[in-house]
Amino acid sequence: MKIRGKSVFKYQIHTPTTVQMLLSPRRQEGQSVLKEDFRIEPFVPFFNYNDNYGNHCVRAVLPVGNLTMTTEIEVLVNDVEIPVHPFPPYILVEDLPTEILIYLSPSRYCQSDLFELQDLASWVVGNAAWGYEQVEAIRSWIYQNVRYEYNTTNSTTTALDLARQRVGVCRDFTHLGIALCRTLSIPARMTVGYLDKLNFMDLHAWFEAYVGGKWYTFDAVQSETHGYRIVLGYGRDAADVAMVTQFGSATLNSLEVETELLEE
Amino acid sequence: MKIRGKSVFKYQIHTPTTVQMLLSPRRQEGQSVLKEDFRIEPFVPFFNYNDNYGNHCVRAVLPVGNLTMTTEIEVLVNDVEIPVHPFPPYILVEDLPTEILIYLSPSRYCQSDLFELQDLASWVVGNAAWGYEQVEAIRSWIYQNVRYEYNTTNSTTTALDLARQRVGVCRDFTHLGIALCRTLSIPARMTVGYLDKLNFMDLHAWFEAYVGGKWYTFDAVQSETHGYRIVLGYGRDAADVAMVTQFGSATLNSLEVETELLEE
Amino acid sequence: MKIRGKSVFKYQIHTPTTVQMLLSPRRQEGQSVLKEDFRIEPFVPFFNYNDNYGNHCVRAVLPVGNLTMTTEIEVLVNDVEIPVHPFPPYILVEDLPTEILIYLSPSRYCQSDLFELQDLASWVVGNAAWGYEQVEAIRSWIYQNVRYEYNTTNSTTTALDLARQRVGVCRDFTHLGIALCRTLSIPARMTVGYLDKLNFMDLHAWFEAYVGGKWYTFDAVQSETHGYRIVLGYGRDAADVAMVTQFGSATLNSLEVETELLEE
Amino acid sequence: MKIRGKSVFKYQIHTPTTVQMLLSPRRQEGQSVLKEDFRIEPFVPFFNYNDNYGNHCVRAVLPVGNLTMTTEIEVLVNDVEIPVHPFPPYILVEDLPTEILIYLSPSRYCQSDLFELQDLASWVVGNAAWGYEQVEAIRSWIYQNVRYEYNTTNSTTTALDLARQRVGVCRDFTHLGIALCRTLSIPARMTVGYLDKLNFMDLHAWFEAYVGGKWYTFDAVQSETHGYRIVLGYGRDAADVAMVTQFGSATLNSLEVETELLEE
Repeated sequence: MKIRGKSVFKYQIHTPTTVQMLLSPRRQEGQSVLKEDFRIEPFVPFFNYNDNYGNHCVRAVLPVGNLTMTTEIEVLVNDVEIPVHPFPPYILVEDLPTEILIYLSPSRYCQSDLFELQDLASWVVGNAAWGYEQVEAIRSWIYQNVRYEYNTTNSTTTALDLARQRVGVCRDFTHLGIALCRTLSIPARMTVGYLDKLNFMDLHAWFEAYVGGKWYTFDAVQSETHGYRIVLGYGRDAADVAMVTQFGSATLNSLEVETELLEE
Repeated sequence: MKIRGKSVFKYQIHTPTTVQMLLSPRRQEGQSVLKEDFRIEPFVPFFNYNDNYGNHCVRAVLPVGNLTMTTEIEVLVNDVEIPVHPFPPYILVEDLPTEILIYLSPSRYCQSDLFELQDLASWVVGNAAWGYEQVEAIRSWIYQNVRYEYNTTNSTTTALDLARQRVGVCRDFTHLGIALCRTLSIPARMTVGYLDKLNFMDLHAWFEAYVGGKWYTFDAVQSETHGYRIVLGYGRDAADVAMVTQFGSATLNSLEVETELLEE
Repeated sequence: MKIRGKSVFKYQIHTPTTVQMLLSPRRQEGQSVLKEDFRIEPFVPFFNYNDNYGNHCVRAVLPVGNLTMTTEIEVLVNDVEIPVHPFPPYILVEDLPTEILIYLSPSRYCQSDLFELQDLASWVVGNAAWGYEQVEAIRSWIYQNVRYEYNTTNSTTTALDLARQRVGVCRDFTHLGIALCRTLSIPARMTVGYLDKLNFMDLHAWFEAYVGGKWYTFDAVQSETHGYRIVLGYGRDAADVAMVTQFGSATLNSLEVETELLEE
Repeated sequence: MKIRGKSVFKYQIHTPTTVQMLLSPRRQEGQSVLKEDFRIEPFVPFFNYNDNYGNHCVRAVLPVGNLTMTTEIEVLVNDVEIPVHPFPPYILVEDLPTEILIYLSPSRYCQSDLFELQDLASWVVGNAAWGYEQVEAIRSWIYQNVRYEYNTTNSTTTALDLARQRVGVCRDFTHLGIALCRTLSIPARMTVGYLDKLNFMDLHAWFEAYVGGKWYTFDAVQSETHGYRIVLGYGRDAADVAMVTQFGSATLNSLEVETELLEE
């Protein structure tokens, strides 16, 4: 399915501000980039690079004043793959490809080394079969037990915080899902991008878990994972995949996001 | 300077043909990608990936029949940097960054290990200062001593062939430049892309040499290296940076290339 | 200076346990590996690999029973470089090499995004010149204000915890140093390895900060950074550079570490 | 099986000579490094690094005079895997992992783009099944039709040369095997290292081809591929995997190589 995604960032820059932006779709299987357009107005030179996860990033120094950044992409994506019985099984740690091991470790917002989250995970998965079923149990438990509400969390909220307060936004739902998977030694990573079926037109975060030898998509914000997605980036958590990381004083006055399905 | 580059490939595919294409601008310093558009008509699924040199490639299986591939890009590029006295010096092999060492080795079309090319290089550079001056001596010697003419070479022509026959096209001029540099232990690599100042509207090949701690641009097809260029890819020689590598029976009926300077 | 480092791990394995071990010296400038020896007794097959940071790791599945792992290395290392006035300056974020940006982000044990640590850093560095002087102010403040004592922290202790409780071990001192540097947008990473001048014969942790275009060594456990060190690994914090990461039930009965200076 | 490999290089250095050496075993599945020892006498500082293929290399500047380099390793290796019927099949180019595509291209000593080698390959494989059987047909044809003899080739001899002259050493046998595989779109790479069953105690070269989703070992110097091997490096051909690459004037007076099977 062909999807168009567009984001318009309007900034007021108070001091010259260095930014790193993650707004370009990943080049990977299941996602073919047809069009890509990136503009900063008034014009500011920028520099493309790939980060340590292979995400396509842009860096620039934004000067004082008002400024608009627009990114527009058209991507052909596959529908999300939801396996059926028999579900993809847990992969023993010793059999994981070495480049995936990094997604087993605790990270800034996913404290999978804490007993409180380990206990919660054990309780949530119950008798689910090791692997996909456990991750799905985690995902749907979060959907049922955490409320989606703006302004209840901030950029320092962690998975542990969310396990306790049970309210947050997609970033937080995702962190909790990742942390609980990792307590079970299931590699999990954060994904950010465009989701076609989003009610609140915004960039979205969800997670992927590695079971049965592949990465599968899980969205704890939905009753069931569905919808066409454009993946912009992967990382261990929000510390790795912020849309915009800024060093300097700048106010984001507005962010308008559109996602549209086009004819194939 | 903002440049628009467009290439339209019209193919007649005789048997299902796997292709690897290098048509996407590199994301790197000095080159900022504003727009990118890629279409295959009739539609064929394709898959983006990065090759071992970090070039952004596409792979696809083209079905039997007629087919058109169009790529259109808008890129902001810096003007080519031509140093002045004192010229960038030769960097001792022991001081080269390790990732550059690969560009010292002989390769398929650049047989820098052959005495005939080593002797030619010594003679061509004469007393030029070690480093940039030597490379410029090589570049301008090739310009003056090799004739640019189509249909005098083919895809198996090597630098040794060109040193002997003294006629060829940009691919061949570039191979000879690279081979001669490498005989002097100056790392050199092939670059392919769009050149604004090209008389014959075509995709272009030139080379870069590593002196004074940086890669500098050299075009042996021009009296002096000039013009705005969009870099699509780097590699050791044409074996690495073919625009289209095909596995199967397909005829390229036409290739139309446009390059246009836009207002900044 | 040539250093010999030896570690002997005696384990009692209760259930088959997958381990990932970081015991092999990094191959890098300033550190030349003369000898390396690794044994598991009774014999267990193992598999070498490089992690995402380029650290040389080993993975194995340890069977039930008693087991000893011995690693012995001889490495030629440079003395630690302590700059003199004028000190290496702060590098603007926009000028950092892209592969270093990852060391600016908060991580599991280094919550540099929290105001409490940002405030502490501002207060600690006072009027120190931006760059090396700030990092040295941080390092020496930690040395003077945090007490070194075993059994006061555990593997989940974070930089924030240490800022509050002011007692811990080298791992904790290092996390606090890293977190404070990152609040100032100075890239910092954790280093683990052998230190010749260590009082308590143990593997050691310290940090490096990127100023003046290079990584410099800082040890907050010492009054002044000194001593010959063999670097085994780099990472963002202890989540990345554990000597042994285990998945399964195993007790480390003893770890004996020796470090010895040899004649050059 | 545990193998000990030792190489002693005695050099006479006439001018200060930069060298790059490939003498360290690869860290990979099927090969576990137990011991590694590297000495230059008289002592010369050296610097470890990994090349673009992930081979573990050393660089150094050797001063004028006589010098001995000794490398000794002990590695646990698996026996070479020889598949049985049904043999691993040819993998379509479109299904090859992208990092393997580089081994399809022609290279300096393997001119797989030349008709002469394409015709030879077609004739040699006859009706063999696509994939492993074709590669084995190539391997055994070379064994039967090319004579092993020193001093009949040199460092610039190519696969085309060997197809014509039918005499050479392991390096040349390997280049021809690789070139013929690549004409059939079967990825092939050169491997260098220690072979236990070698009659002439020397470092050895052989090739690997990618069929059935894995790399298999092929040795055209033997009637049947057998023996325990320690892999030091992979590359496209000898331009990538020279044991020692030198820049400067130095004479290798002797190279003594020992390989010994030890008790497991």
